[in-house]
Amino acid sequence: MRASAFHLSTTREIPAGAETVSHQLMLRAGMIRQLASGLYTWLPLGLRVLRRVEQIVREEMDRSGALELLMPVVQPAELWQESARWEQYGPELLRFTDRHQRPFCLGPTHEEVITDLFRREIHSHRQLPVNFYQIQTKFRDEIRPRFGIMRAREFLMKDAYSFHLDKDCLDRTYQVMYETYTRIFTRLGLNFRAVRADSGSIGGSFSHEFHVLAESGEDAIVFSNGSDYAANIELAAALPPKDARPVPGQPMTQIALDDATESRVTVSWMMGNDGTPVGLVLREEHRLNAIKAEKLPQLAIPLKPVAADALAALKGHAPHAGMNLIVDHAAAVLGDFTWIDPGTGNAWAHVNWGRDLPEPTCADLREVTVGDPSPEDEGTLEIARGIEVGHIFQLGTKYSAALNAQVLDDAGQNRTVIMGCYGIGVSRVVAAAIEQNHDERGICWPQALAPFDVALAPMHYAKSATVRDATDALYAELQAAGIRVLLDDRNLRPGVMFADLELIGIPHRIVISERTLGHHQVEYQARHAPESQLIGREDILALLRDALEPQDRS
Amino acid sequence: MRASAFHLSTTREIPAGAETVSHQLMLRAGMIRQLASGLYTWLPLGLRVLRRVEQIVREEMDRSGALELLMPVVQPAELWQESARWEQYGPELLRFTDRHQRPFCLGPTHEEVITDLFRREIHSHRQLPVNFYQIQTKFRDEIRPRFGIMRAREFLMKDAYSFHLDKDCLDRTYQVMYETYTRIFTRLGLNFRAVRADSGSIGGSFSHEFHVLAESGEDAIVFSNGSDYAANIELAAALPPKDARPVPGQPMTQIALDDATESRVTVSWMMGNDGTPVGLVLREEHRLNAIKAEKLPQLAIPLKPVAADALAALKGHAPHAGMNLIVDHAAAVLGDFTWIDPGTGNAWAHVNWGRDLPEPTCADLREVTVGDPSPEDEGTLEIARGIEVGHIFQLGTKYSAALNAQVLDDAGQNRTVIMGCYGIGVSRVVAAAIEQNHDERGICWPQALAPFDVALAPMHYAKSATVRDATDALYAELQAAGIRVLLDDRNLRPGVMFADLELIGIPHRIVISERTLGHHQVEYQARHAPESQLIGREDILALLRDALEPQDRS
Repeated sequence: MRASAFHLSTTREIPAGAETVSHQLMLRAGMIRQLASGLYTWLPLGLRVLRRVEQIVREEMDRSGALELLMPVVQPAELWQESARWEQYGPELLRFTDRHQRPFCLGPTHEEVITDLFRREIHSHRQLPVNFYQIQTKFRDEIRPRFGIMRAREFLMKDAYSFHLDKDCLDRTYQVMYETYTRIFTRLGLNFRAVRADSGSIGGSFSHEFHVLAESGEDAIVFSNGSDYAANIELAAALPPKDARPVPGQPMTQIALDDATESRVTVSWMMGNDGTPVGLVLREEHRLNAIKAEKLPQLAIPLKPVAADALAALKGHAPHAGMNLIVDHAAAVLGDFTWIDPGTGNAWAHVNWGRDLPEPTCADLREVTVGDPSPEDEGTLEIARGIEVGHIFQLGTKYSAALNAQVLDDAGQNRTVIMGCYGIGVSRVVAAAIEQNHDERGICWPQALAPFDVALAPMHYAKSATVRDATDALYAELQAAGIRVLLDDRNLRPGVMFADLELIGIPHRIVISERTLGHHQVEYQARHAPESQLIGREDILALLRDALEPQDRS
Repeated sequence: MRASAFHLSTTREIPAGAETVSHQLMLRAGMIRQLASGLYTWLPLGLRVLRRVEQIVREEMDRSGALELLMPVVQPAELWQESARWEQYGPELLRFTDRHQRPFCLGPTHEEVITDLFRREIHSHRQLPVNFYQIQTKFRDEIRPRFGIMRAREFLMKDAYSFHLDKDCLDRTYQVMYETYTRIFTRLGLNFRAVRADSGSIGGSFSHEFHVLAESGEDAIVFSNGSDYAANIELAAALPPKDARPVPGQPMTQIALDDATESRVTVSWMMGNDGTPVGLVLREEHRLNAIKAEKLPQLAIPLKPVAADALAALKGHAPHAGMNLIVDHAAAVLGDFTWIDPGTGNAWAHVNWGRDLPEPTCADLREVTVGDPSPEDEGTLEIARGIEVGHIFQLGTKYSAALNAQVLDDAGQNRTVIMGCYGIGVSRVVAAAIEQNHDERGICWPQALAPFDVALAPMHYAKSATVRDATDALYAELQAAGIRVLLDDRNLRPGVMFADLELIGIPHRIVISERTLGHHQVEYQARHAPESQLIGREDILALLRDALEPQDRS
């Protein structure tokens, strides 16, 4: 591709309102343009990257035996009413009526549509298992779209749905998808981790998230330094301390808050499922993990903090045996701790379980912290930041039961099928890759994602016939070898041209000038390398071929 | 692909409510399934065909120098208000509001969005011409979706938009697109014609439609048998007859309708732009061409037939000099014709222009008929049926003027750009191909569109190790040669298997049985051939390679 015939549209300025590096660089490099809040046009440069992701995802899904189909963007309300999500799903589900006043929505996900297709198409266990996928536009009406395509309203997603007669069969496909995702993100050249995750509101019992590691990631993910344990921080279990609780010391006394020197606890008051407040007690230095709390049978779901005036009305804030408390394991081994009244701010020292407060009802309530023992008890935990780009779920029968998707088993009995679902945020991968791979000059694409493999940067292309002929010959040679070349024939000043090529992140650059051509050489520089090197004109193709070999060839 | 691992879902029955052959066959072959009125899921078999079309379109658009981008499906109302189409476009434009009550629509086309992108991105004539395209989901809320994906609400379209400083430059790109479309439909293996067309409500001055020829086509297209003239029937001009008008014979008389033996005329009364009725007079055997009538300055636009009661109120239905008539050329050369009162049904014989009625104001009002002279006066006209699959337009400044899309010319002056636009109904091509290529047994895909190149049909694959080994070896050999093979390992009865393979239209079939393997042979049959032939096992690959050579290799 000649740059003069390609719509390169770069800018030096950091665009107003773009908070994240990937959003800034995608705008500056001319990959995307905003049409409206959360709606983006992919310019030619950006689309080339998006298609690279799409192609690798498609190849690996095909290789896994999944079958590609394509479901509509627009979905009828009836199916969402059958699954009860028409009411349950928040305003992110964009609902509208057609010209005949029939209700529809823009699909944020396709569980209902695929389950409806399944129940009409497949009737025998002999047709199972089957795993259907699509790469399709999705729409979620985010209240505050941000970070460019990272959290857009319209986005491109790969979603897959598998159907099974039994759990063993689902487990096998789930494992195949786990391995397929691992291959996909490996081929994409990304530094990623698969972590155990909570399956959240989509339902089901078992799931993993795939995170691209980046300091700017919104999610905290947890690893063990002594095993392969990895989990989303929402799920990561905190082990109970092994230490015994010390015996109580001095009697409980009210003190001035400033005089408190002991360990403190904090109490989050949530509405219980019987309508009375329940206090969740943590050590002051720990954070409540709401996902863990939502699993407690004692609490109303979704979690509902008790209003301040209702708290003030609670009879007696001072610690006493009648309080309805659930205590995190780490807080339950404290002795002689400080308790602060939520209503009055009064502080009480030397508070002890089993004396001033009842023997604690314990649970794992907190987020793990760096240095905690790994839940599998090998090594300690570390925490990194990640961007979620993939998620695999075991859905169970949530949708198949609601939509009555059954097959005949080999005894001739109708059986509700078990489902799995598997998503990749195709457009989000592009932004995540930039968050992970950039420097102060711009994007540093992993080879597999690069919009072009190589840039040819001729000096004085218009004026020097020597340079022009050498460049055109090299361009033809590389293209014939199947290498994707950008020939920068725009006749810009070298500094401007180099800055552009570095901004858009082409992995390899070859500078062609009269000076080096005189020695039958060109100047080669990899995007990540600090300096260029002179190489012989006849060595270019071999060097590039070697550099462009897929990195996962082992 | 093994059929056992592919979701083949065929049926013998003609599906209820499917009126056209392509709709019936796409349902019967398991290519598509309806989700709701005008909304279809593409099953794996259908999607393979759709992707073939998409790929050829993309390759040829890229070859033409057009740049692919991707614009959102959801578009903000503001831009449509700027072009005034928010009001003008009918209920086919699906309008809705997001969670913040901001108005949006689902894009039926993207002129506004691309023109907005252009005006923000491109400011100099040196960046022109440029031709952007996308292959993207479109939505038109058809009042009565029908014929399956032929007239669906959600569909896949390739749309391109070019920008120019002057008409000459637009003409050149228009010609490139004409040639690109010709290459695309040729590569797709379709029998098609490009015809001159009216540019309709999208605006602009010059356009061609590309039609796939099929007896079931909704459109009539007109050819000359003596030149390369071809036009949509809406546009095809009817030449004025060369004969002079005969001199009047007998005086005008009222007669009984049954006694009428002379040529008759019919009159369509339309509202004039001054609010009074205008009669459009045609020979009885001719049909009014509404597109031609809409271009008459005397009439209100859009055409509005005069209501029956308003007609009855017209003073005097008998022919008289005060009538406001526009007369088709062929009706204007009649003498002694019969006129029938629209209100009363009274008939008048021996009516003559210039005596009983004023000298006629003439215009070309009618549809051409078979045998009419070609408008370029070489040969006579023939009429065929076609399915419109592509349309190229010269838009002029309709959108660029409304949205103020300007560039600086080389004199530093702001100039409004001139636009062209170029569409292909990607999903519609699939249905049109079937309308043109089928027989009583099913679909007969052109090679370029086929979901698989070859079907292997083993006899007793499960029971016979000989057959299974030979089939597996051939399967591996053909796949290694890059041939797309469907191995039918479903162990169906031969009749059922053959019927399936013919229904889904795979171009080549190889039957493998113990009987022929004993002579080192297999049975080969092309989908369009009446009979099979025995060929040597070692000749298969060469035969298929020859058969699969692209048909436009010349």
